[in-house]
Amino acid sequence: MRVLGVDPGLTRCGVGVVEGVAGRPLKMLGVGVVRTPADAELGDRLVAIERGIEAWLDEHRPEYVAVERVFSQHNVRTVMGTAQASAVAMLCAARRGLPVALHTPSEVKAAVTGNGRAEKDQVGAMVTRLLRLDAPPKPADAADALALAICHIWRAPAVNRLQQAHAAARAPRIPVRKVTR
Amino acid sequence: MRVLGVDPGLTRCGVGVVEGVAGRPLKMLGVGVVRTPADAELGDRLVAIERGIEAWLDEHRPEYVAVERVFSQHNVRTVMGTAQASAVAMLCAARRGLPVALHTPSEVKAAVTGNGRAEKDQVGAMVTRLLRLDAPPKPADAADALALAICHIWRAPAVNRLQQAHAAARAPRIPVRKVTR
Repeated sequence: MRVLGVDPGLTRCGVGVVEGVAGRPLKMLGVGVVRTPADAELGDRLVAIERGIEAWLDEHRPEYVAVERVFSQHNVRTVMGTAQASAVAMLCAARRGLPVALHTPSEVKAAVTGNGRAEKDQVGAMVTRLLRLDAPPKPADAADALALAICHIWRAPAVNRLQQAHAAARAPRIPVRKVTR
Repeated sequence: MRVLGVDPGLTRCGVGVVEGVAGRPLKMLGVGVVRTPADAELGDRLVAIERGIEAWLDEHRPEYVAVERVFSQHNVRTVMGTAQASAVAMLCAARRGLPVALHTPSEVKAAVTGNGRAEKDQVGAMVTRLLRLDAPPKPADAADALALAICHIWRAPAVNRLQQAHAAARAPRIPVRKVTR
């Protein structure tokens, strides 16, 4: 399976594409950051993020998009921007019919380091090792996007079964699309 | 000037179009609600809101879009959904090059009732009177969207001058587009 991970943000939106299945070596297909100027109008920044995400979807054709689930325990202003950037990423994916999965920061940390409270550096080090890179991707948002994609590949069997069960419970007469990996 | 007001929400997104200038009677061109099912996937709900907003922009061709500024003093889950719905509305407007203005709930209430802490009913009553309607628009989200549009028309001269000043300060060599009303 090919997954685009998105670490949403207005100023820096991390994006990373990973291919693989649980239990096999993973492969990084691309990593980067979509940036928007802090002094631009909010609407224009959202348009720039949309264009950036669309370009990544066009180039890498992922089958799944994994986005960091936004919590509001942080700075209020930052959280609003993060929620708005994540909305654009989810919109771009859903418009193409791609399944969107949300993972919390602690789920991602636990997936790649074994510790849900791991530091940024530790996440970067594990992403580097798991994808056999020469150095940790910079900035941290880029490494986090790859960690999200890895987390989704490893959690996907359970998450997809759960989504199928929910879908089946909601619409029992519509056949549930089989997820082939 | 013709303004689309948007009271953002995932379940009910109020929309209302008002035409007029400050100091003259205002005219309502349309009011409604874009709804999405609470049990749908978040990405699909955002796509449905995008389609709804696009349909309103296509039909009424507003020159400005006024969106409620989201605060996080309320329920955390609701605020995230509101921020995400507002991002879609701002994106749709900015993609068409329409200026997007954000007004806080208290600015809107103060504009239409004279009291920044007015109750929902009072806002509905004043919207009904100002637009010479037979009854308050239902649900409250629809009335709030009209109130946002009215607020923008009345605040616009000051807000637009401010936006022009900011734009001029940022890019002194680019001629500022004249706002004609």
